[in-house]
Amino acid sequence: MTPQAPTPAYRRLSVEERRSQLIDAALSLFAHRRPEDVSLDDVAEVAGVSRPLVYRYFPGGKQQLYEAAVRSAADELEQCFDEPRQGPRLLRLTRALDRYLTFVDGHDTGFSALLQGGSVVETRRTSAIVDGVRRAAAVHIYNHLDITEPGPRMRMTVRMWITAVEAASLIWLDEDKQPPLDELRDWLVEQFVALLTVTAGRDPQTAALIAALAEDG
Amino acid sequence: MTPQAPTPAYRRLSVEERRSQLIDAALSLFAHRRPEDVSLDDVAEVAGVSRPLVYRYFPGGKQQLYEAAVRSAADELEQCFDEPRQGPRLLRLTRALDRYLTFVDGHDTGFSALLQGGSVVETRRTSAIVDGVRRAAAVHIYNHLDITEPGPRMRMTVRMWITAVEAASLIWLDEDKQPPLDELRDWLVEQFVALLTVTAGRDPQTAALIAALAEDG
Repeated sequence: MTPQAPTPAYRRLSVEERRSQLIDAALSLFAHRRPEDVSLDDVAEVAGVSRPLVYRYFPGGKQQLYEAAVRSAADELEQCFDEPRQGPRLLRLTRALDRYLTFVDGHDTGFSALLQGGSVVETRRTSAIVDGVRRAAAVHIYNHLDITEPGPRMRMTVRMWITAVEAASLIWLDEDKQPPLDELRDWLVEQFVALLTVTAGRDPQTAALIAALAEDG
Repeated sequence: MTPQAPTPAYRRLSVEERRSQLIDAALSLFAHRRPEDVSLDDVAEVAGVSRPLVYRYFPGGKQQLYEAAVRSAADELEQCFDEPRQGPRLLRLTRALDRYLTFVDGHDTGFSALLQGGSVVETRRTSAIVDGVRRAAAVHIYNHLDITEPGPRMRMTVRMWITAVEAASLIWLDEDKQPPLDELRDWLVEQFVALLTVTAGRDPQTAALIAALAEDG
């Protein structure tokens, strides 16, 4: 057999490719270390480039790179919540929650540092990104549940559950990821149904949803 | 009748009294305005003293006065959670939650500003004070429930509920305090019982608590 033309070992990356490469390198470091324990030298080393090149792309230094990494992680996280609108609704929610918890598992230290706050690189911008993820999560949940116009009581219930899931994620990381991911996931889905059931006693829209979920089987 | 010796209209306050007076004045302002909308001149005016006197007691200026006000509010809030250990347990929790929501109602803007973060005067110290209140709330809840050594699943459930109550308080303030306080309070207590009931399926300690609450009647 004639050997195929070899892929060139080195080639010039486009500006966008290089930027992505640096963000990926940063994210891999920020995922498992606290922001204060990551240096630009570390990022350059993981990306296999020089420190000045990192600065050329991120003149704002670590702060700017951190924000870009958080933005990139937020995009990835929002994709976790996406789910085809087919099959039983609680199963859709369970699958989305499974991907969310897998994300938390894979970004443990960075997730805690970002959400617990008080970090040197935390800014209004990173806080706004986190809030955006929370809002996106709520929208995806309404989609999973086939709710087009959630009323105030349902909205409050969903937002309370999202906050509670976030708190549970932080506690879970703090307690050496116990209970196991699938148990935590099912427990959280059960809690969601329990909260909705309580709200159903005060809100016809939520009562109709609970009835529909029961029919899903 | 001989008139009694009149109380002197003006008297020198002790250092502690003056400090308390300034903190009370600051707290009354921070309760209903965002921190950036309160000036030291406002505090001096409300306290009926000069600006230099405020600085003499709080040389760190607004930042230091804000932290002292948050500390004072935290002490007041922790007292809300206290409750004699008598009577049905859920009733104790309902009374504590009523006082908590009344506090939130009376400190609306300041409560939102402090918890939503991003404020110019937010510091690691104010965040630590808020975390201290959350921990105190958990301890009081275990007291109300007569639980001496909560296991990991019960602890996670209680912390999730506390976080959810905080989220509900912020949403409530954001939505013009709807539903009315007593409805929100009862709804939150019902949610607490619902969350514990779900956890009871996975945790014998919580199952025993649920059984005991049912016996309380």
